[in-house]
Amino acid sequence: MVVSSVTTLDVHDISRVCRTFGVGTFFVVTPLKTQQELVERLVGHWLKGHGAEYNPTRKEALLKTKVIKSLDDAVAEVTEKSGEKPCVVVTGAKQAPNRIGFGTLKEQLRKGGPVLLVFGTGWGLEKNLIRNADFVLEPIEGNNGFNHLPVRGAVAIILDRLLGRS
Amino acid sequence: MVVSSVTTLDVHDISRVCRTFGVGTFFVVTPLKTQQELVERLVGHWLKGHGAEYNPTRKEALLKTKVIKSLDDAVAEVTEKSGEKPCVVVTGAKQAPNRIGFGTLKEQLRKGGPVLLVFGTGWGLEKNLIRNADFVLEPIEGNNGFNHLPVRGAVAIILDRLLGRS
Repeated sequence: MVVSSVTTLDVHDISRVCRTFGVGTFFVVTPLKTQQELVERLVGHWLKGHGAEYNPTRKEALLKTKVIKSLDDAVAEVTEKSGEKPCVVVTGAKQAPNRIGFGTLKEQLRKGGPVLLVFGTGWGLEKNLIRNADFVLEPIEGNNGFNHLPVRGAVAIILDRLLGRS
Repeated sequence: MVVSSVTTLDVHDISRVCRTFGVGTFFVVTPLKTQQELVERLVGHWLKGHGAEYNPTRKEALLKTKVIKSLDDAVAEVTEKSGEKPCVVVTGAKQAPNRIGFGTLKEQLRKGGPVLLVFGTGWGLEKNLIRNADFVLEPIEGNNGFNHLPVRGAVAIILDRLLGRS
């Protein structure tokens, strides 16, 4: 899974949700060197620093969290690891021709083969990124037209729908 | 819905999730006067202060957020508003005799009648509170035994399961 431009709290929250649902790798994508260093320091603190002893659960949650400079690099890494180019599915886009529903994607995940789910924060994902994705996941609909979920909430709901037991 | 002892970010996140799924009132429960004031100031900023113009969406999300000093007060307020004592359902407890499943609670919500969902943060809910609840909601299971979701993620998943369309 990929999330672009996050806060340190996003990293913690999303790592815990990814770990709960068995996501292979959670890539934090940012082209900014300072942000990369910030996330690396945070992850290092909980994996190797005082945090590892203080809260082993948090350590476990962050074991598969990795900062990376671009989505292309994440795609390359998954391709190398799994020997297959991942199917790239972006989330949060309102309009898109190549839409995929939760049921269909859940089915695809069950069959196997790498899938890279892409989330954006704040002002959403770049248009180019949406155009180049294999699919755009259908939006989460509430029940009254209000559609401004925090990315942390959206990740939790989407992983539960795709990978949860119920 | 009730959440006890939250950070300001929890208030924002959970308010947005509640608004998405049409929750009647989101009560932030804290017995501490300083925390009550903090949450009231935050909500006031977005409802009446500069925040209301800067981000009307956030204002809309916080319209039904209310700080209150105890769960009993929340129960009393819901009872007064709806003319009926709410069914109190606590979440996050591992062991409980009076368990209710997502499907059964979803059905009950559809039929109508007030339901008060109770979440705790950090170190969980008081034992007394769990004993006095009408039901304990079944836990969210991931797919590998790791069970440490942030409360923000748990609220999102539970409201989606109970009130979402899919």
